Amino acid sequence: MAVPLEQAGTPSYKEVPGSVAAPRGFRAAGLHIGLKRYRKDLALIVSQERAAAAATFTTNRVQAAPVHVTREHVQGGFLRAIVCNSGNANACTGPQGMADARRMAELTAAALGVAPQEVAVASTGVIGVPLPMDKIASGIHKAAQLLSTEGGRDAAEAIMTTDKVPKELAIELEIKGRPVRIGAIAKGSGMIHPNMATMLAFVTTDAAIEPAALQAVVRGSVERTYNRISVDGDTSTNDMVVVMANGMAGHAPLTLEDPELETFAQALDYVNGALARSMVRDGEGATKLVEIRVVGARSEEDAVQIGRSISRSNLVKTAIYGEDANWGRILCAAGYAGVEFDPNRVDVYIGELLVAQNGAGLSFDEAKAKEILHEPDVVLTVDLKAGPAAATVWTCDLTYEYVKINASYRT
Amino acid sequence: MAVPLEQAGTPSYKEVPGSVAAPRGFRAAGLHIGLKRYRKDLALIVSQERAAAAATFTTNRVQAAPVHVTREHVQGGFLRAIVCNSGNANACTGPQGMADARRMAELTAAALGVAPQEVAVASTGVIGVPLPMDKIASGIHKAAQLLSTEGGRDAAEAIMTTDKVPKELAIELEIKGRPVRIGAIAKGSGMIHPNMATMLAFVTTDAAIEPAALQAVVRGSVERTYNRISVDGDTSTNDMVVVMANGMAGHAPLTLEDPELETFAQALDYVNGALARSMVRDGEGATKLVEIRVVGARSEEDAVQIGRSISRSNLVKTAIYGEDANWGRILCAAGYAGVEFDPNRVDVYIGELLVAQNGAGLSFDEAKAKEILHEPDVVLTVDLKAGPAAATVWTCDLTYEYVKINASYRT
Repeated sequence: MAVPLEQAGTPSYKEVPGSVAAPRGFRAAGLHIGLKRYRKDLALIVSQERAAAAATFTTNRVQAAPVHVTREHVQGGFLRAIVCNSGNANACTGPQGMADARRMAELTAAALGVAPQEVAVASTGVIGVPLPMDKIASGIHKAAQLLSTEGGRDAAEAIMTTDKVPKELAIELEIKGRPVRIGAIAKGSGMIHPNMATMLAFVTTDAAIEPAALQAVVRGSVERTYNRISVDGDTSTNDMVVVMANGMAGHAPLTLEDPELETFAQALDYVNGALARSMVRDGEGATKLVEIRVVGARSEEDAVQIGRSISRSNLVKTAIYGEDANWGRILCAAGYAGVEFDPNRVDVYIGELLVAQNGAGLSFDEAKAKEILHEPDVVLTVDLKAGPAAATVWTCDLTYEYVKINASYRT
Repeated sequence: MAVPLEQAGTPSYKEVPGSVAAPRGFRAAGLHIGLKRYRKDLALIVSQERAAAAATFTTNRVQAAPVHVTREHVQGGFLRAIVCNSGNANACTGPQGMADARRMAELTAAALGVAPQEVAVASTGVIGVPLPMDKIASGIHKAAQLLSTEGGRDAAEAIMTTDKVPKELAIELEIKGRPVRIGAIAKGSGMIHPNMATMLAFVTTDAAIEPAALQAVVRGSVERTYNRISVDGDTSTNDMVVVMANGMAGHAPLTLEDPELETFAQALDYVNGALARSMVRDGEGATKLVEIRVVGARSEEDAVQIGRSISRSNLVKTAIYGEDANWGRILCAAGYAGVEFDPNRVDVYIGELLVAQNGAGLSFDEAKAKEILHEPDVVLTVDLKAGPAAATVWTCDLTYEYVKINASYRT
């Protein structure tokens, strides 16, 4: 077969414990302050030194108050802390919501002895309900006292909504001969689709990077990771990825021209890619992680667009849930992606099994297909045979459980 | 409240029995030829006289063989018959599929004594499996013998796939002092989304219309009706709307300049609109018809785009299924429609109940909202307060049953 199932060339890294608190100079905390009934709902991540900061935000026209505030604060290029509550999105809350988001930054700044402009604010949860600021205020005060290098896991738990598992990772690599760590936590389960969905990811590193270089690297990495996953095609009002690099690893700062910037970028891709896939695997009601590889495209943009179209097709996603080798739906979803291609050249693979060739069905081994689709990880490959470009996107199956979760989330 | 729940100004028409065989000079048949296990699976609609013809087709890049053949045949401007099988889409079937679609037209032409170019061919059902041409051949032969003015209902049944109810309608109106009838049958249950989904609609009329005028009227009508519904966001490979106007009502032919063309256009909208909504109501697993009215938009295009974005949001659709007044999801889906608007001006209504104003939630009567959402027909209104334009789109809720149907359709 023409398409290798395993992708080569991805570097591997040494994983270390501690997630966002693993890099030098970072501490974290997560606790229950009463926004959710029982579970942790406030996370705080703090850097001992001022950290270069970069962020990306939801593309939704409707943006929650914390998105506006954090965008403003990150524009300064540096941060000291990230504060995030779950249970309430502070979205569609009008002028009061903006005041509350600013107040969250101020309260955090006061508790830490930093400037409000050095605090990123994030919220996730129910839309349209004002934040209970008394709980937030006392919660931030408590969180500041709980900060520790052991607090990464608590922070990961405190940003969860319908997530079933906390998502955290930290790795170690070497830059300019110095050990460098990158740690991250993330949440995301529903409203997940390219261009930021209700997904939050907070990344810390002790690498030394100039803000402009960091912003460039982060933008590219988000594009290749979080923006290539889809759970349900909805893009939320609250998404953000915030990265803090405090330079405490002690090497000379990476600039845009530095060849070692690529070393950092690859490691960041590794961390973000792993967290992005863990979001899909934990997608609302999901039972399978579906990797969609579009190869032989004229451009990477074409490949991404076709991959996204397939990744958001309810018909493809229910077929995968039913372990049905319904390649016609895959080809059909490619067809309405808005990309020009010749349908009569397209090959479709389920796992390693060629099921359609030159746009027409083959009489393939149904038992073998069933076996492949029975696995928790499924790879679908669409070969357009039109050029050298490729892209991979990830989605999950669409299940009864998804409907159940979302038919009764708010009330 | 600012938004009237009932839309005014829609003319009403006298309904008559017989659907596609109701207009003068048309006969129809529907029978079981063995493509499906038990149910009828071949439909034939024939006009005694040559009829002006117009059609619109799926916008999917992957188009089934019958779409190619019918597009070619309709280009001549005239048709005598439409033949349609269900149970097999003749899509992704390669060169054999093209030969089979042409053969369907030839067999029909031979049975009726007309030219193959005067026959429109349609197929719907499973993708990627060759048509069993022996069954098709004997089936067409039988269908030609069964043709009658009573056959409309049989034809409506024979084009069904996962549809639960046949969809048919005929109305009578007056044009230039002569009684004119318009009849139609349609199918569509899954893969339903704007720009043609697996939906087929065949419309007959004894009105006299020049082909160019007919094509213009049909294009506009499809845009306002079938292209404004969404069941699951998937656009199929096989969709088509074919209209035949045989002129046997005996009035002077309508041209593009004729003021009475608008009378016909409105009646055609009525028929297509009713069938489009019946498709949504019968959407796979649907329990509710959801009408989404976007008003106060700068342009109709903006309104349609926002309406479509809301209509395909799984989160909105599951909330409606759960009878949950989750207006935040509605506003969120408007936000990622790709249309510029000020989120801080938007009002959202559930039925007549204002639930969000100027982009922020109100503390509305939850019991009243529950009552409205408990009805089988739900109207959602989004007022952008940005201009005079409006558009209405229709969708259905997303249910356990949808997942069940689509997790096991093919095998």
